[in-house]
Amino acid sequence: MYFKQRTHTCGELTEEHIGSEVVLNGWVDTRRDLGGVIFIEMRDRYGITQVVFEPHISEQAHHESKVLRSEYVVSIEGVVRKRPEGTENTTLPTGNIDVLVNKVVVLNVAKTTPFPIQDNIDVHEDLRLKYRFLDLRRPKMQNALLLRHKMYQVARKYLDSLNFVEVETPVLMKSTPEGARDFLVPSRMHKGRFYALPQSPQTYKQILMVAGMDRYFQIVKCFRDEDLRADRQPEFTQIDIEMSFIDTEQIYEMVEGLMKDFYKQVWNKDLVTPLPRLTYDDAMETYGSDKPDLRFDLPMTTLNKVFENSTFRVFQDSITKGGIISGMVAPGCGDYTRNQLDNLTDFCKKLGAGGLIWIRAKEEGLESPTMKFLTEDEQKALTAALDAKPGDLLLILTGKKWKTLQLMGMLRQEMARRLNLIKEDSEPKLLWVVDFPLFEWDEDTKRYYAMHHPFTSPRLEDIEYMESDLSRVKARAYDLVLNGSEIAGGSIRIHNSDLQAKMFQALGLTDAEANEKFGFLMNAFQYGAPPHGGIAFGFDRLAMIFAGEHSIRDVIAFPKTASGMSLMDEAPAGVSDDQLKELHIRIRGEQAAK
Amino acid sequence: MYFKQRTHTCGELTEEHIGSEVVLNGWVDTRRDLGGVIFIEMRDRYGITQVVFEPHISEQAHHESKVLRSEYVVSIEGVVRKRPEGTENTTLPTGNIDVLVNKVVVLNVAKTTPFPIQDNIDVHEDLRLKYRFLDLRRPKMQNALLLRHKMYQVARKYLDSLNFVEVETPVLMKSTPEGARDFLVPSRMHKGRFYALPQSPQTYKQILMVAGMDRYFQIVKCFRDEDLRADRQPEFTQIDIEMSFIDTEQIYEMVEGLMKDFYKQVWNKDLVTPLPRLTYDDAMETYGSDKPDLRFDLPMTTLNKVFENSTFRVFQDSITKGGIISGMVAPGCGDYTRNQLDNLTDFCKKLGAGGLIWIRAKEEGLESPTMKFLTEDEQKALTAALDAKPGDLLLILTGKKWKTLQLMGMLRQEMARRLNLIKEDSEPKLLWVVDFPLFEWDEDTKRYYAMHHPFTSPRLEDIEYMESDLSRVKARAYDLVLNGSEIAGGSIRIHNSDLQAKMFQALGLTDAEANEKFGFLMNAFQYGAPPHGGIAFGFDRLAMIFAGEHSIRDVIAFPKTASGMSLMDEAPAGVSDDQLKELHIRIRGEQAAK
Repeated sequence: MYFKQRTHTCGELTEEHIGSEVVLNGWVDTRRDLGGVIFIEMRDRYGITQVVFEPHISEQAHHESKVLRSEYVVSIEGVVRKRPEGTENTTLPTGNIDVLVNKVVVLNVAKTTPFPIQDNIDVHEDLRLKYRFLDLRRPKMQNALLLRHKMYQVARKYLDSLNFVEVETPVLMKSTPEGARDFLVPSRMHKGRFYALPQSPQTYKQILMVAGMDRYFQIVKCFRDEDLRADRQPEFTQIDIEMSFIDTEQIYEMVEGLMKDFYKQVWNKDLVTPLPRLTYDDAMETYGSDKPDLRFDLPMTTLNKVFENSTFRVFQDSITKGGIISGMVAPGCGDYTRNQLDNLTDFCKKLGAGGLIWIRAKEEGLESPTMKFLTEDEQKALTAALDAKPGDLLLILTGKKWKTLQLMGMLRQEMARRLNLIKEDSEPKLLWVVDFPLFEWDEDTKRYYAMHHPFTSPRLEDIEYMESDLSRVKARAYDLVLNGSEIAGGSIRIHNSDLQAKMFQALGLTDAEANEKFGFLMNAFQYGAPPHGGIAFGFDRLAMIFAGEHSIRDVIAFPKTASGMSLMDEAPAGVSDDQLKELHIRIRGEQAAK
Repeated sequence: MYFKQRTHTCGELTEEHIGSEVVLNGWVDTRRDLGGVIFIEMRDRYGITQVVFEPHISEQAHHESKVLRSEYVVSIEGVVRKRPEGTENTTLPTGNIDVLVNKVVVLNVAKTTPFPIQDNIDVHEDLRLKYRFLDLRRPKMQNALLLRHKMYQVARKYLDSLNFVEVETPVLMKSTPEGARDFLVPSRMHKGRFYALPQSPQTYKQILMVAGMDRYFQIVKCFRDEDLRADRQPEFTQIDIEMSFIDTEQIYEMVEGLMKDFYKQVWNKDLVTPLPRLTYDDAMETYGSDKPDLRFDLPMTTLNKVFENSTFRVFQDSITKGGIISGMVAPGCGDYTRNQLDNLTDFCKKLGAGGLIWIRAKEEGLESPTMKFLTEDEQKALTAALDAKPGDLLLILTGKKWKTLQLMGMLRQEMARRLNLIKEDSEPKLLWVVDFPLFEWDEDTKRYYAMHHPFTSPRLEDIEYMESDLSRVKARAYDLVLNGSEIAGGSIRIHNSDLQAKMFQALGLTDAEANEKFGFLMNAFQYGAPPHGGIAFGFDRLAMIFAGEHSIRDVIAFPKTASGMSLMDEAPAGVSDDQLKELHIRIRGEQAAK
C-alpha cells in the first residue's frame, strides 16, 4: 500500500511544532477508546507520540481507527496540538502535545503478541529468544543495541585517531586447536580438508605487524566450540588491537585512553588515569582472584607469619607443606548464628575446601572452637594482622596456596553478596592485573600450559628460566579488569623465532607439530619481525557492563542458547544429503549408502 | 632486547627538526656503503628516512651498522641534520634531512626476501600470497589497506550521522541454500545438524526492521561456496543497509550521499547528484548490460522498426519470432581489414552468436556482403538510425532478444577495448539501474528464479500478474553501477506474509519447503512488519575501484586463491580424526572404523 514518508519520528514532536501538519509512521503501542474519541500511543525507535482520532476531525479516520490493535503498523497524517490542560504526560518528551488525525493508513496488521512489548516482563528467556523480533522492540533491548552501536563508534574513532588501521582478517582459516575447540568448515574443493573459524585473529594480527602495518585494530567475530557456561556464546565479538615497536607502557596508555572515552561517552564519567596496577601475585593474595572486584574492600591477609610457630596441627601442616593460611574479616558479622556459620562452611566445602575456620571477635577477645589450639599471643597477633574489631567475624582458610587463595576469593565474593556491598550505583572499579605467570601447571595432565597463549613473551629477565624452572617465568601479559570481570587481556609477543621455538618446546610441542600448526608464523619471524604486542577486549561483556545488564545475551541481537541453538530460526538444522555429498562428508553411524 | 620508543615515525622528519635528537624504529629499506660512510634508508608505514653512520660520530654505531641488511629491524638514535647541498631527495617528504646516528640496536635480523619490497615487482601472485607478510610491506599494498581503512570509517561515520544502528548478525546461522551453496559448520552438540555461514544477513536485517530498529547497517563478512571466478572470494565483505518506512527514493538519496562522501574523501572529487537512472530494459537495449560502463558511449540501437518489412530472411526470422535486431557503430573502424572483421566475428561466435553482420560506411554508402539483401531505403534508414558517418563500421547482431542484447553488450565492451576508450584517468561513471524484472526464466531447469532474491517486492501495480504472467512483473529493485561494475544492489522488500507466500509459490516452493526454510521470517511478518528496503555494497570491489586496482585480491589483506586456498598458512588443511569424531562426521569413502 502507498503511504506518505514521515515528516517526524515518534520521539521528536514538542510544543514548538503545535499547528504543524505532520506524518508519523510507527507501531500502535497502546489504544484507548474513550467513547467518542480514540487515543493511540504510536511508537518507533525514537519514542512515543499520542495521536487522537476524533469523529468531528475526520469521520473516516475515526472509523478506520476502530480496527487498530497493539503492534499494528500505521501511517497517520494530522495536526499537532497542545494537549488539553491536565492531560499532559510528563514522562514523555512528547508529552505536552498530541496529534489530531486526519488520515490513517494501516500498513500492516499484527497478531496478539506472546508477551507485551514493554520493559518489565516476566517470561522465560526462551520465549523471548524465539520471538526475538518482538523482544527487540522493547525499549530496554533497543537501548542496549543503541549503546552497543555507540561503543563501536567510540572505539573506532579513538583508534583511527591514533593511526590504527582497521584490517579484516580471514574467517575461513586453518585449524590450530590449542586450548579451545575449533569450529570446522569442510572444504568442497579439497576433499578431506577443513577450514576452521578463528578463535581469535591472533596469528593474523601478528603477521600484520611483521608486514609493517604498525598499528592494527578490528572489531571482529571469534568462535569457540565450547560447552557453554552461562555467560559464553559460541560466537563472540572482540576489539582486537596490535601495535609495533612498543612495550607494556604504551599499551596501558593507549587502552586507558580508550576506556576514558567509553566512561565519558557512555557513562558521562571522568576516568582517572593512570589506572591502578596489581601484580597477579598481589591480586591473588589480597583478593583471591586475578580479576578482583574492587568495588568493595574485604581484603585477604596471608597469616603464615602469624602462625609460623603454631602448634595447631592444621596450620603446621600447611606451613611445612608450603601451603598458605589466608584470613579475612567480615565486618559486623560477629553475631552470625551457628546456623549461618555452618552454612558458610558448607559453601566453602562445596567449592572444595577442607573446612572453614571462623572466629567471633568480642570485646573480651576471640571466640571460636578453634581458639583452644592457639596461644594468646597468636590470638593477639591474628587480631592485629586482620585489624579485627569487636563484633567482626574472622574467616580463615588454609591449604595448598593457589587453591586456597581461589577459595578465599570466592568466599570474599560471597561475603560481599551477603553484606550487600555492591550497589547498583557503586562506583565502577577498573584496574590492571600484571606480571602473570607465563605457564600454568595442570594437575590432571601433569604438564604446563600457556596461561595466556603460546605467543606471549616472557619477561626478558626470566628467559633464563625457560629451560630450568617454568614456574618462575613471568609473562609480559596484562589483563584489564572492570568490576571483577576481565574485559581485556593481552601481552607483548615473542617476535623472535628462536624464542618462539623455545616456547613451543616448553609447551611440549615437537618441532614437527609446531611447524605444522604455526610454521607460517615462525617463517614470517625470520624476515624481520618488529617487537610488538597487543590486547583484545571481550566486547560483549564490556557492552553488558556498560549497559548495566547481567547477561551478555541482553546486549547481543541474536544470541544462542547454552546448547548453541538459535531459537528463532532453529539453527543448527538438518541439511540435505546432497549438500553433505558435495562436502565429502557423512554423518557418523549413518548407513554408508551409495 | 631493550630499545627506546621512537620519537618520530620514518615519515615525519623535515627541516624544522634539524638539530633534534630523535629515535627511529623501522626496517632497513636500502643500504649503501660509501667507503667510510654507511647510508641506510629506514622504512616504516609512514615513510622513509635516511640515516647515516659516520665513524667520527660514533665508531661503535658505524661498526655495528656493517651487519645491517635489507629488512633488518633497527632502532637508531641520532641527530637530525640538513642534507649536504645537492644530496637532497625531492621524491621523499623527508628528503631534505637525514639523521646522523649515535647508537643503533638491531631488533631483528632478516633472511633475504624472495622478492624485493617495492611496488613494481614481476613475480607470480602465488609467491606474493605465500609470503603475504612481505608482500604487504610494499607501499602499494599498504596504501590499499589504508584506503580500505578510510572507506570503512567514511561509511560508518556517514551512516551513524543518519541514525543508522550498527548491529552484528550471526555468523552461525541456518542453512537456506537458494542460489549459491552454503558453507556448513557441523554442530558438536547436536549430532547431524549443521550451521551455515551467511551468504548475506538478508533475513536478519529484515527481522531487525520487524523489530523496529528502523535503520540498520553493518560492514560484514559473507560467504559463498562457489567455484571461484577470477574476481570472487569465498569470503567477502558487504556494507549491508536496511531502512524502514521508506520507498526507493529514500534509498537513492541515502546511497548517493554515501557515494558523495567516498568521492570526496577518497578521490577528492565532487559527485553530482541525483545520479542518472536507467531502466533495466533501456540499459539492456542501449548498452547490452544491466551494469553498463558509461565511461564510453558506443550505444546500441534496436533496429526492428528499420527492418520491419525486410525481405532479408535473417531479419524476418528474428522479427517474426519476437527477437531483436541490434546495431551499433564503431567510429572510424571502417578501415578494419577482412582479417580484423573475421576476428570480431569469431569473438561473437565464441560467445554464442550465430554470426556478426558488419558493414563499412563509405562516402558512397554502405558496403558489406549483406547489403545485397537490403533495399536502398533500408540502407538509408539504417545509416540514419545509427547516425553512421563515412569511415565508421556498423555492427549488427540478431536473434533472441536478451541473449542478443547481452552478446551485443560484450561486443560493445570489446570495441571499447580495441578503440582504447577507457583511459586510466577517464572520469568515473556512476548510475542507477532500476525496474529490474522480478523473475528470470531459466532455460535449463524450465522454471522462474528470483532475479535478486525471494524477498524482493514486486512493483505494486504488477502484483496482479503474480499469478498470471511472471515475465511482466517488475521488481522494486535497483543496482548501483560504477564504471561497469555492480557495486551495490538492493530492493524494497515484501513485508506482508501473504505476498511473501505468493512469491514463494511463484518460485515453486511448496508451503512446507517455504515454511522450513523461511518460516521464522513469515512468522515475524505476522506481528506488524513495517514497509522496508535496503541495499548491500560489495565492499571489496568498491575498494578495488577506488584504489584503482584490477583485482580484489589487491585490496584484501589475506585473500584466497581461485581454489579457495590460503597459500600462507595452507588452509584448508587436514584435521585430526578426534576432531571429526566429536563433530559426528566422517570423510566419505574412508574406512568406517570404530
